[in-house]
Amino acid sequence: MKILVLGADGYLGWPTSVDLALDKHELLLIDNYAKRSIMSENNRAPLILNKKIESKIKILKKINKKVSFKNIDCSNFNKFSDAFKKFKPDAVIHFAELPSAPYSMLGAKEGWKTLQNNIQSTYNLVWNVKTHRPNCHIVKLGTMGEYGTPNINIEEGWLNVKHQGRNQKFLYPRQASSLYHTSKIMDTDLIWFYLRLYSLRATDLMQGPVYGVYANDFSKENKLEPTFAYDDMFGTVLNRFIVQSVANVPLTVYGSGNQIRGYLNIRDTIQCIKLALKNPPKKGVLNIFNQFTEQFSVKELANKVASALKKIELNVKIKAIKNPRIEKEKHYYNAKNTGMKKLGLKPTLLTDKVIIEMAQYVISNKKHINNKIISPKSTWK
Amino acid sequence: MKILVLGADGYLGWPTSVDLALDKHELLLIDNYAKRSIMSENNRAPLILNKKIESKIKILKKINKKVSFKNIDCSNFNKFSDAFKKFKPDAVIHFAELPSAPYSMLGAKEGWKTLQNNIQSTYNLVWNVKTHRPNCHIVKLGTMGEYGTPNINIEEGWLNVKHQGRNQKFLYPRQASSLYHTSKIMDTDLIWFYLRLYSLRATDLMQGPVYGVYANDFSKENKLEPTFAYDDMFGTVLNRFIVQSVANVPLTVYGSGNQIRGYLNIRDTIQCIKLALKNPPKKGVLNIFNQFTEQFSVKELANKVASALKKIELNVKIKAIKNPRIEKEKHYYNAKNTGMKKLGLKPTLLTDKVIIEMAQYVISNKKHINNKIISPKSTWK
Repeated sequence: MKILVLGADGYLGWPTSVDLALDKHELLLIDNYAKRSIMSENNRAPLILNKKIESKIKILKKINKKVSFKNIDCSNFNKFSDAFKKFKPDAVIHFAELPSAPYSMLGAKEGWKTLQNNIQSTYNLVWNVKTHRPNCHIVKLGTMGEYGTPNINIEEGWLNVKHQGRNQKFLYPRQASSLYHTSKIMDTDLIWFYLRLYSLRATDLMQGPVYGVYANDFSKENKLEPTFAYDDMFGTVLNRFIVQSVANVPLTVYGSGNQIRGYLNIRDTIQCIKLALKNPPKKGVLNIFNQFTEQFSVKELANKVASALKKIELNVKIKAIKNPRIEKEKHYYNAKNTGMKKLGLKPTLLTDKVIIEMAQYVISNKKHINNKIISPKSTWK
Repeated sequence: MKILVLGADGYLGWPTSVDLALDKHELLLIDNYAKRSIMSENNRAPLILNKKIESKIKILKKINKKVSFKNIDCSNFNKFSDAFKKFKPDAVIHFAELPSAPYSMLGAKEGWKTLQNNIQSTYNLVWNVKTHRPNCHIVKLGTMGEYGTPNINIEEGWLNVKHQGRNQKFLYPRQASSLYHTSKIMDTDLIWFYLRLYSLRATDLMQGPVYGVYANDFSKENKLEPTFAYDDMFGTVLNRFIVQSVANVPLTVYGSGNQIRGYLNIRDTIQCIKLALKNPPKKGVLNIFNQFTEQFSVKELANKVASALKKIELNVKIKAIKNPRIEKEKHYYNAKNTGMKKLGLKPTLLTDKVIIEMAQYVISNKKHINNKIISPKSTWK
């Protein structure tokens, strides 16, 4: 299959690209390193500053010659369009969005940058698909955060509403708690609009927070790990907890820690994307999956880490701090996630072994940890 | 009250400004004439090219000294912010959006211009309100088109959902049939997000297509009419029908003409905005009203025009043409509109007299009619 990967340098874009290269797909990887720039401008270095794709691609080419890379800003319509028309993809995986809730809430400039980048890159993608490759399958990364924390069960993307004796199926109503998450609601609005008008095909993967380092053994053997962020802006919560454990500082739980979310291992992200690629929707259909394997409260997550790492003699402390976010700390949460399992997802659950393996990776890079970038600096106020 | 009017040059922005000036409010009018530029670039002249605000404001100053104007692009954060901070409004009326569905569907450039302008101007407004005037009442023009044509009754903005034994109140799910209308869904996402986080106050007026010329007698006496567009891109359907009648060309009904919408007179738009200003929501509350007075199918509307104008001896013909839009032509439609009536709206219904008065205005400017710009040039394909 000819697959275009937008945002191929990211935490998930890169391992997805490696895995698809191993599967011998013809790949065009695109990134403009915007996230690297923003992390650098905000003094948030990842654990290891990975080489850029231009240099890492040599290793991929050894296993698959049909992999290439272009440094393009997907929000630049003409440049993106030129690459798209030339490559003629059968599927596009869209990771080219700024993924940080705290960054989006930092100030007016950062908020607009998030909105502009995420909406414009999605707009350019959909326009090119509708104009040049209407059969191309758009696989878009959404987030469980789009749903927020409603008082009813969270279905997979859609809600059948009975109202005054009549029925209508709607996109499940979304209400997020950060501007970043709101930008993801807006790009869903956009894809869903063009899809139903022009009979396009898309899969929206509503993903929970991801944790982990290596998505496959090849990456581990060839040191092709993704950018592992652990800071307050770009680090996901479990990755941050592991780094705090290794750095011997308390795990910072925001507020009461009763906030429940659905989590998944980076290996499962790749599995889900590959399952989505293998199961494209019919024309005019938007497939939506809730992409997580287990629900935990933040407090439970911290306790799991502490208990697992005791086995390798790390003495983990947990500290509740004032919540820098504005979010409900006590809420109902029950989200469905059966769709991917039906397609064949074999979940990699959060066992002590998984936590210890992550900690071992962090321990081997302990000297790079910068304690100063872990505690939250950006608040929602 | 100190009221900021964004998009004060528009079909509705201008008569609202005149009416609020008559009511002796302190006003800052803002516009950058973007719509004039776009109409001109696309060779879509209005019936009369009105003078710009700089010159018309002299007449307003005779009745109210506290009226001023600034030529500012609301999507320019710094310029907008400077004006906002200096003026310190108690209320803002937000008309500063590109309002044309056909323009938004013309091509990639026009679509992005619509999205960028509408989202960025709303973003800049909300950011300034939350930062500098959190008590300022945002009155935003939405559109009934955001709801689309669901198979259930359309409530006023909100929907109480019962699902598997639990309850949740959501924004009524929206699904529009043009990119312009989708941009209005996205700006609602944005206002609703910041409002619930920062306890702002906003009123969203979900307006149907507006018709009419003069909103009050003062405007008529002083020839302060709004820009009256009748072309395929910027003209609303009833205004277009009146011009076609006067030009002695058939009224162009798109497709079967069974598309039902809620309509209102320009006088009622102004009434509703003033009622919204008089009834600001509490902090943290988003008031939503469905702003229309009567539901008609396009076919009924054409027949009403033909029948009324027979009284002044115009022989009106009606012609069904291939629908340039992608929209359901046969659909359920039942929208609630009791909110504004409860606040005191006295509807100006679409009587023969109203239709004839509009026709008389058009007849007095008959020489300006350009037949070539009435039939649809932009299609959704």
